[in-house]
Amino acid sequence: MAAAAVVNGGIPAVKSTSTTEIGRYSTVYSELQRSRIEHSLPLPRVLSGNFSVVDGPISSAAGHPDEIAKLFPCVFGQPSSIMVPSESEGLSSAQKLKIGVVLSGGQAPGGHNVICGIFDYLQARAKGSTIYGFKGGPAGIMKCKYVELTSDFVHPYRNQGGFDMICSGRDKIETPEQFKQAEDTAVKLDLDGLVVIGGDDSNTNACLLAENFSKNLKARVIGCPKTIDGDLKCKEVPISFGFDTACKIYAEMIGNVMIDARSTGKYYHFVRLMGRAASHITLECALQTHPNISLIGEEVFAKKQTLKNVTDYMVDIICKRAERGFNYGVILIPEGLIDFIPEVQKLIAELNEILAHEVVDEAGNWKKKLTLQSLELFDFLPQAIQEQLMLERDPHGNVQVAKIETEKMLIQMVETELEKRREQGSYKGQFRGQSHFFGYEGRCGLPTNFDSSYCYALGYAAGALLHAGKTGLISSVGNLAAPVEEWTVSGTALTSLMDVERRHGKFKPVIKKAMVELEGAPFKKFASMRDEWALNNRYISPGPIQFVGPTSNAVNYTLLLELGAQA
Amino acid sequence: MAAAAVVNGGIPAVKSTSTTEIGRYSTVYSELQRSRIEHSLPLPRVLSGNFSVVDGPISSAAGHPDEIAKLFPCVFGQPSSIMVPSESEGLSSAQKLKIGVVLSGGQAPGGHNVICGIFDYLQARAKGSTIYGFKGGPAGIMKCKYVELTSDFVHPYRNQGGFDMICSGRDKIETPEQFKQAEDTAVKLDLDGLVVIGGDDSNTNACLLAENFSKNLKARVIGCPKTIDGDLKCKEVPISFGFDTACKIYAEMIGNVMIDARSTGKYYHFVRLMGRAASHITLECALQTHPNISLIGEEVFAKKQTLKNVTDYMVDIICKRAERGFNYGVILIPEGLIDFIPEVQKLIAELNEILAHEVVDEAGNWKKKLTLQSLELFDFLPQAIQEQLMLERDPHGNVQVAKIETEKMLIQMVETELEKRREQGSYKGQFRGQSHFFGYEGRCGLPTNFDSSYCYALGYAAGALLHAGKTGLISSVGNLAAPVEEWTVSGTALTSLMDVERRHGKFKPVIKKAMVELEGAPFKKFASMRDEWALNNRYISPGPIQFVGPTSNAVNYTLLLELGAQA
Repeated sequence: MAAAAVVNGGIPAVKSTSTTEIGRYSTVYSELQRSRIEHSLPLPRVLSGNFSVVDGPISSAAGHPDEIAKLFPCVFGQPSSIMVPSESEGLSSAQKLKIGVVLSGGQAPGGHNVICGIFDYLQARAKGSTIYGFKGGPAGIMKCKYVELTSDFVHPYRNQGGFDMICSGRDKIETPEQFKQAEDTAVKLDLDGLVVIGGDDSNTNACLLAENFSKNLKARVIGCPKTIDGDLKCKEVPISFGFDTACKIYAEMIGNVMIDARSTGKYYHFVRLMGRAASHITLECALQTHPNISLIGEEVFAKKQTLKNVTDYMVDIICKRAERGFNYGVILIPEGLIDFIPEVQKLIAELNEILAHEVVDEAGNWKKKLTLQSLELFDFLPQAIQEQLMLERDPHGNVQVAKIETEKMLIQMVETELEKRREQGSYKGQFRGQSHFFGYEGRCGLPTNFDSSYCYALGYAAGALLHAGKTGLISSVGNLAAPVEEWTVSGTALTSLMDVERRHGKFKPVIKKAMVELEGAPFKKFASMRDEWALNNRYISPGPIQFVGPTSNAVNYTLLLELGAQA
Repeated sequence: MAAAAVVNGGIPAVKSTSTTEIGRYSTVYSELQRSRIEHSLPLPRVLSGNFSVVDGPISSAAGHPDEIAKLFPCVFGQPSSIMVPSESEGLSSAQKLKIGVVLSGGQAPGGHNVICGIFDYLQARAKGSTIYGFKGGPAGIMKCKYVELTSDFVHPYRNQGGFDMICSGRDKIETPEQFKQAEDTAVKLDLDGLVVIGGDDSNTNACLLAENFSKNLKARVIGCPKTIDGDLKCKEVPISFGFDTACKIYAEMIGNVMIDARSTGKYYHFVRLMGRAASHITLECALQTHPNISLIGEEVFAKKQTLKNVTDYMVDIICKRAERGFNYGVILIPEGLIDFIPEVQKLIAELNEILAHEVVDEAGNWKKKLTLQSLELFDFLPQAIQEQLMLERDPHGNVQVAKIETEKMLIQMVETELEKRREQGSYKGQFRGQSHFFGYEGRCGLPTNFDSSYCYALGYAAGALLHAGKTGLISSVGNLAAPVEEWTVSGTALTSLMDVERRHGKFKPVIKKAMVELEGAPFKKFASMRDEWALNNRYISPGPIQFVGPTSNAVNYTLLLELGAQA
């Protein structure tokens, strides 16, 4: 502590000014952006009055608790922290805190409001505190690049999309040297706490930092659940922020395309949606819009489907629709689809091996190295995809699966199969595919009222948890189907979300991604309705996100159904 | 008249029921869609009280009035019809009318409200009238496929996007046989009038129908200005419907992508927008969002720019931005861009000629047939585009320019040029391109309040014009920057919008597309600001269309600037 105090009196290493374009002072706003800045946010009742932080039950781990305990000797097993109303002020408002905050990974609508929540908490409950925004993600911590967040600085970002207040980055704090750099920064800035806003990896990292800091620093670490993909969640953290806004933006576009499809009557729209690891976005958008076909990666995987199976499933529906006179439709595809297909993974692995050692000859002799199954699959692929696999490789010579435009591949495969059926006489329709990818459009939209309020509460709670001296927790806001006032607030031990994976002979802690559960309420709802959506047209167009009036406080289906199933 | 009355007593040829999926009875609505159905629409003051229809000035033509007069002996030269308030009811409410309506061409948000406007006019001012919706566009007229529109039928489409109430089509009524079919339908249904909702071609067609019908039928024809492209307009018709909504949907997406670009700091987003003939959409979106680069086809054409010029323009900006530390940006591209580049047109023409007669040999001897300029251009094109030009041809063997993904082509060309400059030492940045096409998403969105009200007024006015016995006019609503109550309402002679084109040795009447005027207020505004937008980041994110609260009654820039310049 003495050491920290000395450094505190010195001059920080890099006092960043606005040489890089961070800070919106120079920017222009649309009328709607301006109106959103002034939108005042409700707080859960427990946070708006006096509250104290009480211990919940002792925690364990999501798997291998013994290994997790070994990896996190300081923070493992701690109880959750629950905010409860109290008669008197629970935490000393005389305490002045120095808090850092960092945005980690891809953008998600609402990130700015988490920061505003922390800021407002400190202003209200620990006046005179300082908040530093680390710039450009975890690299900002390691390089001690930051900006001090003032009321004027923070204000223009209230309820705004994007991460441009302090920007984000994908660096990780992993090596001993990097942990040392982070420590140095914490010491230099005399940090009492750090809030890490990120996904599963970033929250794992937050927990490692918490463990590391707790050995010899006062700085504590709290995580916040961010990702539009919706795959960071557990009982205490019912949803990650950004998912609600992103899905509603995609659903707006899908709904528009549906009305277009029905009006025009001649296109099949193949819509690829974000979500490489899990298909929550596709599932939620399906529940919001009722497309004819939605492919859910987790189901494809569980059923061990082949690309041929997936194609046949689509083509069967397209043929039946043609018989009813519908030569149009809308098909949703998660961007990670082919990662869920075991045979594709096998082919890719074989190709990587072969391409590393063999000359690819025109005559195709190299193909003899493929196993029979992979050879059949390769020959089944459209030529353009074959070429893409062979030609576009990363610097290590590996096939770039991520570059494959799945929606275009599926269109070609459907076309080929339909032609076969036409020759067999079992298809007489017209097929024209249109491809779409809805991705970047959804990551930085103006946050919905839900995400705005949710993020604000997450940030406010993170501030309170740090104020209460907690570390290694993830800010947790629950009861989210109720009005904001009734939301519950707590902190959940990050170690309780963790399991281990064996990598290079060592156990590595990971927060397991929450996949679409085939026994979960959202998938079951979808599965019970999809046949009806397939052949009849039950399209729903949710329309643009509203901030006032009808639908402005709507909650997404995934959350509602999961909460309903829990209740 | 007697003949018509007899047919009226008979049974119409095809009394269509819902065997094809037209009509929303079976569909499900989102909460927002439902709330929009109940949204009541204001009417211009002149239409909500008693009014009479008075003659405006005599009209001429947009060009070659003598030829237009010859082509339209009946309807040429007629005055405009202006609605003015009157003490008493101007038109007999005792008259019962039989009116047909047809949607022609691509979807545009608001089409349903035009129909609702006609319907409500007839209900209010000519009770007992009948309105027929021709199904699937002009083909519905020729085949006499229609549905009688009732209050229950129309209701669920109020303020809804899409054309699915009666669907649209791209057929044209052109040959004498086709005109005869249309006549037969008019006689069969005893039509007093027909409203054609469409773009420039459809309104030209409407005028031909008006001329044709006026020879021996009572049926009159009124047009309504539809197209998201915004290229059907004149002094009396300040804007085509759908443009406002479509641009706002695209601008929402562009704004989101901008915030993403700024937050991530590593992508150049190349956004292709609809608008094959004119670049109004790109210009409007640029004014709404302030991208770093916007290519306007009309300017490229006027300056006789080559593909190399266009590439250099972009690369110069990208290099300057890299010097400032900005390795990201947003670039807007109208989908018709390459149609505006003379050298590309020349190359395409030569390729079509060569490919029709020559064998394309591997050695490339066929290339010797190209002129030097075209050869240079061909070699300048990225390989993927070369292949696309050579391989993907339409059934007539012609190169398919429309299939070229301009945004991807430009990314490749920019990459190539940047690599050159890197070798020369004049570029040290990082470039990563992301391509987007915003098209179908915008054609069928929920109409903005502006488009909802505008279309309703257009339809209401069309009903009144038919009631007043007018023909060959286009429904015209003006003073659009003012509140709806103050909008002016009239009908403008369609022939006054026309010029002739010589085709196959004959004069053909055409409504000239309204292109972006380089001396017009919207382009000048854009031109005065684009250098600032290019290097600094002045991004604006308009956010989603709102139906209540801030921005819900905003008017687009193109309209505001053009009206301002007129005033």
